[in-house]
Amino acid sequence: MKFISILMGSKSDYEIMKHCVDTFEKFNVKYELIISSAHRSPQRTRNYVKEAEEKGAIVFIAAAGMAAHLAGTITAVTTKPVIGVPMKGGAMDGMDAMLSTVQMPAGMPVGTVALGKNGAINAAYLSMQILAISDAELAIKLKEDRIVQSKKVENDSKDIEVIL
Amino acid sequence: MKFISILMGSKSDYEIMKHCVDTFEKFNVKYELIISSAHRSPQRTRNYVKEAEEKGAIVFIAAAGMAAHLAGTITAVTTKPVIGVPMKGGAMDGMDAMLSTVQMPAGMPVGTVALGKNGAINAAYLSMQILAISDAELAIKLKEDRIVQSKKVENDSKDIEVIL
Amino acid sequence: MKFISILMGSKSDYEIMKHCVDTFEKFNVKYELIISSAHRSPQRTRNYVKEAEEKGAIVFIAAAGMAAHLAGTITAVTTKPVIGVPMKGGAMDGMDAMLSTVQMPAGMPVGTVALGKNGAINAAYLSMQILAISDAELAIKLKEDRIVQSKKVENDSKDIEVIL
Amino acid sequence: MKFISILMGSKSDYEIMKHCVDTFEKFNVKYELIISSAHRSPQRTRNYVKEAEEKGAIVFIAAAGMAAHLAGTITAVTTKPVIGVPMKGGAMDGMDAMLSTVQMPAGMPVGTVALGKNGAINAAYLSMQILAISDAELAIKLKEDRIVQSKKVENDSKDIEVIL
Amino acid sequence: MKFISILMGSKSDYEIMKHCVDTFEKFNVKYELIISSAHRSPQRTRNYVKEAEEKGAIVFIAAAGMAAHLAGTITAVTTKPVIGVPMKGGAMDGMDAMLSTVQMPAGMPVGTVALGKNGAINAAYLSMQILAISDAELAIKLKEDRIVQSKKVENDSKDIEVIL
Amino acid sequence: MKFISILMGSKSDYEIMKHCVDTFEKFNVKYELIISSAHRSPQRTRNYVKEAEEKGAIVFIAAAGMAAHLAGTITAVTTKPVIGVPMKGGAMDGMDAMLSTVQMPAGMPVGTVALGKNGAINAAYLSMQILAISDAELAIKLKEDRIVQSKKVENDSKDIEVIL
Amino acid sequence: MKFISILMGSKSDYEIMKHCVDTFEKFNVKYELIISSAHRSPQRTRNYVKEAEEKGAIVFIAAAGMAAHLAGTITAVTTKPVIGVPMKGGAMDGMDAMLSTVQMPAGMPVGTVALGKNGAINAAYLSMQILAISDAELAIKLKEDRIVQSKKVENDSKDIEVIL
Amino acid sequence: MKFISILMGSKSDYEIMKHCVDTFEKFNVKYELIISSAHRSPQRTRNYVKEAEEKGAIVFIAAAGMAAHLAGTITAVTTKPVIGVPMKGGAMDGMDAMLSTVQMPAGMPVGTVALGKNGAINAAYLSMQILAISDAELAIKLKEDRIVQSKKVENDSKDIEVIL
Repeated sequence: MKFISILMGSKSDYEIMKHCVDTFEKFNVKYELIISSAHRSPQRTRNYVKEAEEKGAIVFIAAAGMAAHLAGTITAVTTKPVIGVPMKGGAMDGMDAMLSTVQMPAGMPVGTVALGKNGAINAAYLSMQILAISDAELAIKLKEDRIVQSKKVENDSKDIEVIL
Repeated sequence: MKFISILMGSKSDYEIMKHCVDTFEKFNVKYELIISSAHRSPQRTRNYVKEAEEKGAIVFIAAAGMAAHLAGTITAVTTKPVIGVPMKGGAMDGMDAMLSTVQMPAGMPVGTVALGKNGAINAAYLSMQILAISDAELAIKLKEDRIVQSKKVENDSKDIEVIL
Repeated sequence: MKFISILMGSKSDYEIMKHCVDTFEKFNVKYELIISSAHRSPQRTRNYVKEAEEKGAIVFIAAAGMAAHLAGTITAVTTKPVIGVPMKGGAMDGMDAMLSTVQMPAGMPVGTVALGKNGAINAAYLSMQILAISDAELAIKLKEDRIVQSKKVENDSKDIEVIL
Repeated sequence: MKFISILMGSKSDYEIMKHCVDTFEKFNVKYELIISSAHRSPQRTRNYVKEAEEKGAIVFIAAAGMAAHLAGTITAVTTKPVIGVPMKGGAMDGMDAMLSTVQMPAGMPVGTVALGKNGAINAAYLSMQILAISDAELAIKLKEDRIVQSKKVENDSKDIEVIL
Repeated sequence: MKFISILMGSKSDYEIMKHCVDTFEKFNVKYELIISSAHRSPQRTRNYVKEAEEKGAIVFIAAAGMAAHLAGTITAVTTKPVIGVPMKGGAMDGMDAMLSTVQMPAGMPVGTVALGKNGAINAAYLSMQILAISDAELAIKLKEDRIVQSKKVENDSKDIEVIL
Repeated sequence: MKFISILMGSKSDYEIMKHCVDTFEKFNVKYELIISSAHRSPQRTRNYVKEAEEKGAIVFIAAAGMAAHLAGTITAVTTKPVIGVPMKGGAMDGMDAMLSTVQMPAGMPVGTVALGKNGAINAAYLSMQILAISDAELAIKLKEDRIVQSKKVENDSKDIEVIL
Repeated sequence: MKFISILMGSKSDYEIMKHCVDTFEKFNVKYELIISSAHRSPQRTRNYVKEAEEKGAIVFIAAAGMAAHLAGTITAVTTKPVIGVPMKGGAMDGMDAMLSTVQMPAGMPVGTVALGKNGAINAAYLSMQILAISDAELAIKLKEDRIVQSKKVENDSKDIEVIL
Repeated sequence: MKFISILMGSKSDYEIMKHCVDTFEKFNVKYELIISSAHRSPQRTRNYVKEAEEKGAIVFIAAAGMAAHLAGTITAVTTKPVIGVPMKGGAMDGMDAMLSTVQMPAGMPVGTVALGKNGAINAAYLSMQILAISDAELAIKLKEDRIVQSKKVENDSKDIEVIL
């Protein structure tokens, strides 16, 4: 079994990370989702990551706000790729979570995506791109999705465009 | 043939990205490296990405500074994972390159790593973690590297530590 | 036929860019308007820009938010002047879009205007100032508009001013 | 006589703006250059701008640092296009000059380019793009320059590129 | 006749600057108030400042947002003290107006106060402190006001304080 | 008598600091609470701190916004530990209060906690951790609380978690 | 005796504040200068301010870096105008000192000038503008200085200007 | 045995944290010092913290840069007070380390001190203030140190002060 594992630092992150889950549902990709905190439940976080890895987790996604240490905590436990989604709501419009997630020391990478909802969706896309390296069917779906995205831009445009 | 492809927006990025290359050399991972700009050679960038993908590029790494569009430009051409390394030297201590790289719209992910040298090294690590999903030998090397990193911390400590 | 060409990165930018369009309508200046994304529809963007230039586009206006690459993408395709309007809504109160738009590398300029609504209006004014270099009638209109703007300040003042 | 007019807020800006001048020399474009301050010589600034406009100035370029008001002061006097080049050296790595230049009120545009040297060069390019609208020879030179820029990227790459 | 002169860059600043006016009313200090823009009505601004100075303006207060040049424009015309009140609403939570107001070049000071409402009130206080240097009655009022302010703190505290 | 002393710079801080008080109530820890300003009632602030210290205050908590000097003012009067809670609402999303609180000169420490509500709660926790050094009962309560916090994470997770 | 009083938070500020002193010397304006810290010598600061005010201090200038509380501390003791000069060297290129100085609560103004050397000079100018309200001779000197400043701009320009 | 425990995230932090050590030496306070990383040696960090606590560590000091998770990692393991010292050198002049250290979630406090050298010294002072609650001798030393600090200000002043 291969799947993506999503961890959120607190319940309040779910509203945003729902968009990550929805993206996996749309592409029919298997995922796990739990809440576990880098600070309030560090043991649970480590245990879960180790067990998930053994069970088949291919990529970990960590969503956290403020001094967002969750992605880094996961990276310290596993050598699987970790994607960090910084949440808004702390200081400087989410800059605290962004910098706490992305500025990792050498040898301990976190692939960081955009703040908030766009990041939640892109964490799903980036992990699917990783899965697709060895999943030809998913690779095709991702290419088809690009055409859908491009068509959507054209359709959005049609409603308002002005061409001389 | 499977390899990692590195693109740099300008020659001056090489001093930093040398650390990325050195990391691949150390782990004996195949890579390509070219300079190609999102703005000054957009056609070359697109052509290279498409050809590299056909030849076996598994992950793309893009290093750029200022209004760093290179990672985004690559993402627009391929559905392979793209890792962005923001360079310092523009405005606000590299914040321009960081935000230009990470704040991608939904559906178009760039996995962004730290600013400068740490990011250059982590781009190598993150791409090797992705390769290692289907390369058991590399996976073991990455786990062994963690032990080396941990030992290095201990050794560094020994020189100066004070224990009562 | 001479006209100004407006591109928006997404449908949601239209609410702000409506103020750009309204300014052109007020001055009776010809414009085109489409939605096209630097990342989701890059080919469409390039094709449109080339065709618009051939049809007579004199200036391009690009409105985008977050990692706002649209203006840069257009600049990479044409040597016509490109004006960038950064949208708010991403990180740091629009600072992501501002820096992604303005911090272009040497040889690839984007004339950047203010964030949001003021920028939308000023993109129209700046492009009309460019048109007016070879359009004496428009040049006069722009000078008259300055008198109107100045009068408006005086009238606004009258309602509340206190003079001893 | 058609020319570009460059104003600098202080003598210390010349070291950077030399790159703007060099760009005009390279393309054989006529320019004027003076030092005049928005605050220390406001009357001189206004007088110069009016006279330069009468003499044939097509575009104004203003370079200033800190609370960079020079571009705005020029915009208030003329309806010709004004390009602002924010200088580094004040607060937040030039963010003071950037925001003071770009955040103009509706109806009073300043086309702002990158901080420092890249901005100095791009102010030249943007003004030449404006000139080129009615100067076919310059338009061709700008297109040729794109090829030169692109070739330079390729040549830079050759020294270091690694292709499998 | 001695008075304080208040200028606002736009009508929308009045809601905030009403607190400045109210402070003067409370202390029975004479003031003038007009709207005049650094960019949209520069001549009117200069004329007003010169006339106000001749009529007896002792201090000028300038309220403006975004690329807030109004205080600097007044400083360039008069050697009377100028106090700048940066308005919120532009970029980075008013940081654009703050830096555009305070970062003046040597020899051209603007005494800058806090962003928004607190700044509006403090512009009144600072100008009254200046007036009070040669107005013994006002000086006493300002000292009495300190006692009132201090008492208010004590009274506010009483409602909620917990003392063991 | 041993207790924690809470000072707030203004009445409006109470809404946030209520969370600090509630935390002390929950753990049955004695506290005092007053409003006193570093600027508007400096004498009262100094007097209170000295008296509180004599009465048994072990730690001081200072909550203030904008140019938040209250914690520093207390530090200058006492050698007891001082914890600063920066309030939001000023410039840059509370960055003004954060930097004014934390950036103290050598020899004059303020232990600064997070912005706003989280900081209010953590000021209580940090001061209880200090009390607990010599209060075994409180030390046990704090350890038990960690288990409660950890359980809460697990319970929050149960509502939404997806395990394959 | 009327004079300006300068306080610096630490010895290291003198290198910058020397420019303030030099400006007073040039204009033959009386000043006092001491080092006194808001935190390390608060009593000395208060005593000095009270005595200086009695002796004839008309304006206070406070130079401090990091969590720059010195200007606010002086404001809390006197109702004379207080000018704050934020020093660089702490966080975010002096933004800590800037915000700690300018963001004062209502009723407690600090007139803040630019960061560093320009601010040191402008603190002198602003205080002289205040003195000049009741010192006709100084008022004339300040007007003459404007002509000198303006001439200097013209002379600086002559060395490099290019006029067609 | 009671002592303070200092952890540094990397060897390069020692140059700054030497000032922390020197302060403990000066006051004759017992400390331990080790290098241990939140990410590269997480197990070692947890083990050390638990053992140090059992051995008598009263306060933990954590120095780390970039995405500075070390203080938070320690807080997650112990209920002893944790003081965080953010190091400069990452993004935005140390703002990454500052926000990663201070913005902790409710229930998991880190008392954060200033960036760099001042913070290193203040971490020592703050931990000594905590020790001094139950160490009357140290409490007296800290009070005497205040007199020394105050005298130093006076002496520094004497070299340069100008009194009329």
